[in-house]
This record gives sequence, C-alpha cells and structure tokens, in this order.
Amino acid sequence: MESRLVGPVRIVGVGLLGTSVGLGLRNRGIETILADASPTNLSIAIDYGAGRAALPGDAPQLIVVCVPPDVTAEIVARELEAFPDAIVTDVASVKLAPLAELRERGADVSRYIGSHPMAGREKGGPLAGRADLFIGRPWVVAAHGGISYQKANAIDDLILDLGAVLVEMTPEDHDRGVALVSHVPQVISTILGRQLSNAANASLNLAGQGVRDMTRLAASDPDLWVQILGANAAPVREILVAYREDLDRFIDALAEPTAPGARRKLAEEMIGGNAGVARLPGKHGQDRTFASMIVMIDDTPGQLARLLHEIGEIGVNLEDLRLEHSPGAQIGLVEISVLPEVVSRLTEELAARGWRIAG
Amino acid sequence: MESRLVGPVRIVGVGLLGTSVGLGLRNRGIETILADASPTNLSIAIDYGAGRAALPGDAPQLIVVCVPPDVTAEIVARELEAFPDAIVTDVASVKLAPLAELRERGADVSRYIGSHPMAGREKGGPLAGRADLFIGRPWVVAAHGGISYQKANAIDDLILDLGAVLVEMTPEDHDRGVALVSHVPQVISTILGRQLSNAANASLNLAGQGVRDMTRLAASDPDLWVQILGANAAPVREILVAYREDLDRFIDALAEPTAPGARRKLAEEMIGGNAGVARLPGKHGQDRTFASMIVMIDDTPGQLARLLHEIGEIGVNLEDLRLEHSPGAQIGLVEISVLPEVVSRLTEELAARGWRIAG
Repeated sequence: MESRLVGPVRIVGVGLLGTSVGLGLRNRGIETILADASPTNLSIAIDYGAGRAALPGDAPQLIVVCVPPDVTAEIVARELEAFPDAIVTDVASVKLAPLAELRERGADVSRYIGSHPMAGREKGGPLAGRADLFIGRPWVVAAHGGISYQKANAIDDLILDLGAVLVEMTPEDHDRGVALVSHVPQVISTILGRQLSNAANASLNLAGQGVRDMTRLAASDPDLWVQILGANAAPVREILVAYREDLDRFIDALAEPTAPGARRKLAEEMIGGNAGVARLPGKHGQDRTFASMIVMIDDTPGQLARLLHEIGEIGVNLEDLRLEHSPGAQIGLVEISVLPEVVSRLTEELAARGWRIAG
Repeated sequence: MESRLVGPVRIVGVGLLGTSVGLGLRNRGIETILADASPTNLSIAIDYGAGRAALPGDAPQLIVVCVPPDVTAEIVARELEAFPDAIVTDVASVKLAPLAELRERGADVSRYIGSHPMAGREKGGPLAGRADLFIGRPWVVAAHGGISYQKANAIDDLILDLGAVLVEMTPEDHDRGVALVSHVPQVISTILGRQLSNAANASLNLAGQGVRDMTRLAASDPDLWVQILGANAAPVREILVAYREDLDRFIDALAEPTAPGARRKLAEEMIGGNAGVARLPGKHGQDRTFASMIVMIDDTPGQLARLLHEIGEIGVNLEDLRLEHSPGAQIGLVEISVLPEVVSRLTEELAARGWRIAG
C-alpha cells in the first residue's frame, strides 16, 4: 500500500506519541523532521530512527504537535506562525481547550485541526515509541468550521498511513466522549485506589481480579492527568456530579438497609448498571457477545502454548484470553472467550485431550 | 493425598457453590448428601455427580449451607437443630450478619463456624459447578469465640480437601475486608456503568480497555448483590462515605481548575491513588512487580499458540497474559507479563523470530 502523505512531516515533541508517529511514518518511507525542547530526548529519537533533526529551510507539508496538553496551544500557535504553508495538528487528549486558546491567541486556525489517537502505553518517553502503536486504534479528528476539507486531507492521510481508524467528531463531542470513557474512569479508579491506602494487609490479601481491574488506572501518571483533567474540567465534572447523585442514593439506601424501599432502591441501581455496561460495543466494534470458559493449566513454561496449540488444532479462534494465577498455588486459570456456538464442542474436545475445564 | 474429612458431608443448596463443593468432595471419595428447596436443581446436581439425595437416618459429620445470604442464618439454624451432632458452616459472602442472627435465634453456635470461599463465576446454577472451582483460592474461616478448636477442624479439612487456601479472620475483619476489595468495587463499577446509559453512541465507540475493566463488575446479578450489600451495609457505607469525600474534592477542584491550588489538589488525589494501588499484593501473593510487553499477532487460529510455544522454547514463564483485539482491525495485541530480568532477552529473541513487539 503506498503512502498517502507527501511529506516531509515535522513532529514537535518526541515522547511516546511523537516518536511513534515518526517511526510509523519512516516505515512508510515518509521524511520526518523531529523537534523537542529536550536535546537529550531529541537525540534519542533520532538515533532510534524516528526522523532527522530540523534544518533551516525545512518546508513541512504537515506538522504534528505531540506535547503535553498544557503547552499544546502555545506550540501549535508557534508552529503555525513559523511555517505559514503547513497544516498543523496535535494529539492532545482534549480538543476544545487548545482550539479556544488558539482562537484567543489569534492563530491562523484555517490551517489547524486537532486530533487524538486513542492509543497509549503505561510507559512514556521516546524509547517507549513503537511504529505500530496506532494500528487498528481509533484516531479522532476534531473537525471545526474554520478549516477547509482539502486542508484537512493531510491529517486524514497521516492517520491512514499510521494504520489507525479515522473517527470524525466535533471538539465538544470528543471531549464529552473521552470524559465518559477515559477521564471519569480514571478519577473513579484513583479514588478507589486511595481507599486502599489505609487498609489492613489481611483485607488486601482477599483482593481478586475485580478490585485489580478497578484500580489498574489508579497507577497512572499524576502530572499528565492533572493537565488532562484541568483541560477537560467541565465535562468531567458534569459526569462526576451525576455519579455523586447515584453514589448518594447508594449511601442513603445503605444507611437503613432494612427500611421499606431500601432494597428496591439498591436493585434499581444494580439494574441500571447492567443496562449501561451492556451498551459498550463488542471487541470488534460489534455488539456480538462471546461465551467464556476457564481451563486450568500448570504454571510451567509451555503449558499455555500447548493449550492454545490444541485449540488451534480443534479449529477454534479465540476472541479473548486472560491468564489468572491462583494466589499461593502453582496453577493458572486461563479464561478464554469464543463464539457461543463452539463452546460445547471445544469443551468436549479439550476434556478429551485431558484438559481440566474449570467452567 | 488422602482425604482429611470422614464424611458424609451434607450440602444444602446446590447452586454454583454447593454443586462445586459436592463435585470436589466426590472427587476425593467423600460421601455427599444433597438438599435443595428446588427439586429440579436437586435432581440436576445429583445427575451431575455432586452427591446423593438425603435419606432418613443420615448422620452427616459436616453440613455446608450454600444458600443466598438472605436465608443463610435461617437454614443454618434449621440444620443445627435437625442434626444435633453435626458441625455446620456456610459460604455466604458476609459473615457477621448470619452469626448475629443465629445468636438472636438462640441457635447452638458452638457447632457453627461461618466461612467464605473467594471463588465464583459469572454463571450460576448447578450446571455451572466445577470440582476444581476452589483450587488455589483463599477460603476465609470466620472464627468466633463460641466454637472449640476441635470442632472447627472439620471445616479446615473441608477447605484443604477442596484445594483452597485457608485464611483465618474474625467475622468483623472479613466483612470489612470484602467491603473494601469486593463490595465497594462492585458499587463503584455499577455507578460507572449507569453513567453509560444515556451516552451517545459516538462516545461509547471511543471506549478502550480502561472503561471496559472498570465496568465489567457492573454486569453482576442484581438479586444477589442486593442481598450482599444489605447484609454488609455498614462497612460498605463507611468506605463509600470516605469515597464520597474524595469525590467531592475532585468535583470542587474541577469547578475552578485554574484557581490557585486546584492543580495541587488534583495532583495530591492522583498521587494518593498511586500509593493505594501499589499496596495490592502481587499475583502469587507476593509484592514482586512484573514487567509487561505487547506483541502483535494476526487474528487467526493458531497465531497465539505459536507465540506462546516460542516463548516456551525461549524458556520464559508467563506471569500473566491478556489478549486484546484492536477495534475494527484483524489484529490482536497480546500483553504478557514476565519477570523484569527476562524482558530484554525475550524482546530480542521474539523480534529475531519475526514477532512484532508493540511495546
């Protein structure tokens, strides 16, 4: 597949995202120019193959600003001014605030369109960058009225060249969407994480997969999240206020759990949760539900490989897989998701091969 | 290994847990007697091999009551009376309320000790039962002063015969512990799930692994959870009230995100979340942290098996594994956790074999 972009593409900020954009575009043979406030990061990213250093007379077709949310608008404005023929985008995880700040600054937003790749890693920095970081991930283009369709083309090409899935939204819809599916879950997880701070060790030893899943996000980088939450404060706050209303109802119902109606209230909340989570689209962007089963394996090298090899022989494709270790036991539980129609055949065939199906 | 229990063991309630206890004990050659208010469930569990029907003159050594929390104390009291020589335990996920109710009823608690296996499945009913459901799982014995050490032995034997890991706690400590690591995470997830009810489809399409992990519990059974929350209302409410205080601080800080101190407040909350989640013990009950890496695979049968086979050849043991599908792409991302010291060797060797390491 040929590259859509002509290039060169200038990348400002070579952390995880900027370096990944550079590596991905270099893989497609597109010339990339790197810039970063940190000379150390810049030289690492260059050595890593993400692009070359800037030169006087560079005339980039497209500039991708990959800096923290707090300084995104400032850097975008500077780039728009320095390169009057270039189209500029950014990758910050909020879209309304940078656009508003650019307009306030009087920047030429007819050449700017914000975007946001829904990709990331727990690690940051140029060495965490990967050419294939964006493959298959949604990449939002936050359209605004001030830029022409033709000019926005370069950004669409960038996204398609990097293998991402283009999603068009207004900046408002984007910010509301990420508040709901990313920023609020982060806050909720952080608060739950805080509740563990003063817990007895004996309580923590009872922890299973549930609380682990619920607090994984709580380990996120505070600096980055202070910026994100600050820049998307209104939509995040709005959902948190609605969240608090539900929480208050729980707290009230639990104050007198035997009072008339308390149980009904709790049931209504639980059913509401069932209904909400059922709206999340399926793994392949479909609503199809998969069936899951649990297979026990010894916790030794090669066991899981043998299991999956045999599932392959049986001709079943796994939709999802999770490996869970039993606390204190040298046994692994493999939870596999498959199409519902193959469950009984797979169970039979695996059992016949001697696998212990735990459910 | 020989069975520790003499038997017979009477199991009252043959849902998921009761049937699993029966199947597990039958595997150890112990005689099991089944009882259930539903004749249909009883006959399914008997056909399934979990035990035999009760007969006049049965003299069980031990009785395991596996009924919903709401009726646990009533059934335990009935069993204590009907079998004056038997030791009785239950498996309800709250421990203080049944004990208090038994004392109120004047039951002979010198032969009762509550317990709680930290095992379950999303499915219920006798056919969801598995002989190995408890293997490697913590099983709490909620000691109380009214039962002698010798009498409690039968319950310890039950737990060890089923392959679970015995954990001794007071009923108070148990209920506080499960409030923190199980009941509050359930409430938090349910409320987050509710927030998705009125969301735009476009927002939901941006959902990644974070919000999915955070709302998985929201799909739980409302009936069961109304009973659990009702029976453990005070400890759950206490943590939810502390949770609400943290939430209020977030909401306040987000009301004026540019006010002096707002950022510092957000940062303190985020750092508190980091510190709390770091206290969760590691997968094997240790505090050891594993390193993770992501490998890309084609979404076809056998690919994951080949990867894991090769990891086995390289001689590396996986500590954890997760398979994630990219939305809209026929590509799977396999996140594997390994000991930190093997990461660089594994990365090199997998890359040399042609695997694409995405991070």
